[in-house]
Amino acid sequence: MADVYLQVIAHYFAKPGNGDALVKPLTELAAATRAEPGNLYYEFFRSPLDPEHFVIMEQYSHADGLAVHRETEHFQRIGVGIIIPLLERREVSSHLVSGDTA
Amino acid sequence: MADVYLQVIAHYFAKPGNGDALVKPLTELAAATRAEPGNLYYEFFRSPLDPEHFVIMEQYSHADGLAVHRETEHFQRIGVGIIIPLLERREVSSHLVSGDTA
Repeated sequence: MADVYLQVIAHYFAKPGNGDALVKPLTELAAATRAEPGNLYYEFFRSPLDPEHFVIMEQYSHADGLAVHRETEHFQRIGVGIIIPLLERREVSSHLVSGDTA
Repeated sequence: MADVYLQVIAHYFAKPGNGDALVKPLTELAAATRAEPGNLYYEFFRSPLDPEHFVIMEQYSHADGLAVHRETEHFQRIGVGIIIPLLERREVSSHLVSGDTA
């Protein structure tokens, strides 16, 4: 059976006018997160039609990968400290799925 | 138990220089797809760091939703006829998951 992994889809909605300000911290957070032992994939994308709407695609090798990620120094410093204050809201879903990693 | 739906994640990689040309047909395909009875969600996003890399997030109310989508006139006309020839490759994964729709 193909490997099971935690698929995380995080929709981030920036406060009006804050979209551009998200790109740099998300780039930094992406690089740091990919270095986490449990991380299999981390990329962020932006809607061409709504510049305040981003989606982050993440995969972790274990069910607790997202919880571990959220406790890291870099998530606390960049995610909680810089990115989240720029946001209006977040919609995060995660599912254990089977299949090859993206 | 929360509703089960088909979560589709489609990574589209445009041939070099074709990224901008994808936005209009993807916008048209998105509007037509959202009108499909079985579609729950359809949005496309673009990597700020790699302008040729797009991801399409789709949700369907039934396991055969993606197959039905691919048979529609609009997918054949826009997807097969316009978008796919602009692409270098596609990576599409789909999983039945439970939980509220995004």
